[in-house]
Amino acid sequence: MAKVYNFSAGPAVLPHEVLAQAQSEMLDWHGSGMSVMEMSHRGKEFMEIIHDAEHDLRELMHVPAGYKVLFLQGGASMQFSMVPLNLLGDKQSVDIVNTGHWSKLAVKEARRYCHVNVVASSEDRNFAYVPAEDTWQRDPNAAYLHYTSNETIGGLQFPFVPADQGVPLVCDMSSDFLSREVDVSKFGLIYAGAQKNIGPSGLVVLLVREDLLGRARADLPTMLNYQTHAAADSMYNTPATYPIYIAGLVFKWLKQLGGVKGMESRNAEKAGLLYHAIEASEGFYHTHIDAPFRSRMNVVFRLKDDALEESFLMEARKNGLIQLKGHRVVGGMRASIYNAMPIEGVKALANFMQDFARQHG
Amino acid sequence: MAKVYNFSAGPAVLPHEVLAQAQSEMLDWHGSGMSVMEMSHRGKEFMEIIHDAEHDLRELMHVPAGYKVLFLQGGASMQFSMVPLNLLGDKQSVDIVNTGHWSKLAVKEARRYCHVNVVASSEDRNFAYVPAEDTWQRDPNAAYLHYTSNETIGGLQFPFVPADQGVPLVCDMSSDFLSREVDVSKFGLIYAGAQKNIGPSGLVVLLVREDLLGRARADLPTMLNYQTHAAADSMYNTPATYPIYIAGLVFKWLKQLGGVKGMESRNAEKAGLLYHAIEASEGFYHTHIDAPFRSRMNVVFRLKDDALEESFLMEARKNGLIQLKGHRVVGGMRASIYNAMPIEGVKALANFMQDFARQHG
Repeated sequence: MAKVYNFSAGPAVLPHEVLAQAQSEMLDWHGSGMSVMEMSHRGKEFMEIIHDAEHDLRELMHVPAGYKVLFLQGGASMQFSMVPLNLLGDKQSVDIVNTGHWSKLAVKEARRYCHVNVVASSEDRNFAYVPAEDTWQRDPNAAYLHYTSNETIGGLQFPFVPADQGVPLVCDMSSDFLSREVDVSKFGLIYAGAQKNIGPSGLVVLLVREDLLGRARADLPTMLNYQTHAAADSMYNTPATYPIYIAGLVFKWLKQLGGVKGMESRNAEKAGLLYHAIEASEGFYHTHIDAPFRSRMNVVFRLKDDALEESFLMEARKNGLIQLKGHRVVGGMRASIYNAMPIEGVKALANFMQDFARQHG
Repeated sequence: MAKVYNFSAGPAVLPHEVLAQAQSEMLDWHGSGMSVMEMSHRGKEFMEIIHDAEHDLRELMHVPAGYKVLFLQGGASMQFSMVPLNLLGDKQSVDIVNTGHWSKLAVKEARRYCHVNVVASSEDRNFAYVPAEDTWQRDPNAAYLHYTSNETIGGLQFPFVPADQGVPLVCDMSSDFLSREVDVSKFGLIYAGAQKNIGPSGLVVLLVREDLLGRARADLPTMLNYQTHAAADSMYNTPATYPIYIAGLVFKWLKQLGGVKGMESRNAEKAGLLYHAIEASEGFYHTHIDAPFRSRMNVVFRLKDDALEESFLMEARKNGLIQLKGHRVVGGMRASIYNAMPIEGVKALANFMQDFARQHG
């Protein structure tokens, strides 16, 4: 097939350089005679791979001392349980900000274990905004405050980091991890499913401040206890070795491109091109998200006439622009433009949108 | 590096044909323009991959109607919690056969949730045998009977399937899944970490009889409930897509080689060569496992003089025979010879063992 630009929300496009390197190393990693998939996780070859991956991630995010980096499995959905079960300790309640589909799932799962105080919600306007922080009804005794920095389905992104107010901040960064600079020291815990900005699915990367370990419920399955994995440097049992290897290649690729800072400006430019295409269309395209909260990762938009959606998707595909259909929960279109989406792909989409609007407007 | 034979216990050697195909498809799967790692798990391309994988596995194992096939994460270690938490129902106790390291971990984790009745143990002779079934102290009210069909570390394998006696059989088949014919209808639940006979780590394959679903503890995390994944055909959230793809390629490779029946005779021949080399060495090599229970997957042996271990490993490596060091828990040597280990590799090892014994005997 001809070159395509893949706007999937995740699993999503990976850097071509990373895939090409994985391809070249598939049968023999660095002269070991083994594929990475065939390596004992406790052998020196894989130990080097996981060590490098952690080292590079720490460097990319300027992770301060006192934080553990964990490579886990089960996706962000597993964290919706693990976070309350590990961090509740002797508290009775947690604070969660509700800004869309993924926040709601975090609320729903946490409610099975404790009281959930929804400190603020933008459901009244279909999650078009992040409620102003000074309106949040926070509980000073909450075990933590959880928010979703980027709502992959809704296309909403936090433009700020909430104040901690003495309560640990927990953030689901699945879909904007490594896409912009973050001061890790403000957080108690950050987690991210890999399949957007990190690597293949089946891997979760988690940063946790060490003083938050050791609060797990006594009956928690051993494998769900952060302490289990922290004490064993993510090697309590066999980790997802190949996804960790690919993540490590992605981290090296990021470093070569100027790190997170470099990505942040690239991502701002890419998102700017698409939001400009929407705004310049004089209503042919529109997004319901208020301007300050429009995601730089998932650009969600609709056509003025829903009946045009099918031909938009079909013609886009003919132009090599694929996976643009919005999530079934919100409908419309969604262009996911994670770190690995080259600006050429975004320009191609913006041009296509302009042409399509001219033909059908 | 020159060709090596990799005897790692897992992650372990994969079929060369599978890795070569994965390499050729790395940048573009079947003309889709995407790597499998970049595909939306809900797109038609990946749906075809996971559907084929399940279909081929069902065919290989002759899975009868009434069983769900699940593709999960977290390794067999996660199942040590999930099995009791899902299957206990209103029962108070479970039966477990203790035949080594992995059985003991299953016992330890299950004890956190219920009474564990160890029906039999071979710990008295360092797990050299499987206790005769007619000596087992079974509880007719147990929620299930759990056993480990092959102890990867100890090198012990069950030569029989226990009778169910009206109690569901649960089997950890991590290290001999698909290596010999199994009558699935005898089992309530079978699980296997992928990284021995299936594919890359980060994937667990599980077969469960449908009538055992729906007994989970009410406070079980959603992601740990088999019902969650059964109802969503393993797509409740993003599964480990790339490991599932590789597993699917392995299943097709198995079918081409005569399926499980074909593997069973190959594996018997391979194991026979190594046990013959041990027995023919006149005490230079020895294994403590009683003959009927010697594993066809993990051949565990010692040298008559422990001081020779380092030079055995070093000279083996010079001959391209790697990852032969036994698990630290039992020491000695271990040759893991899963489905993907070619008979040429086993012959090379048997010849090397003979030569080494001659030189150092």
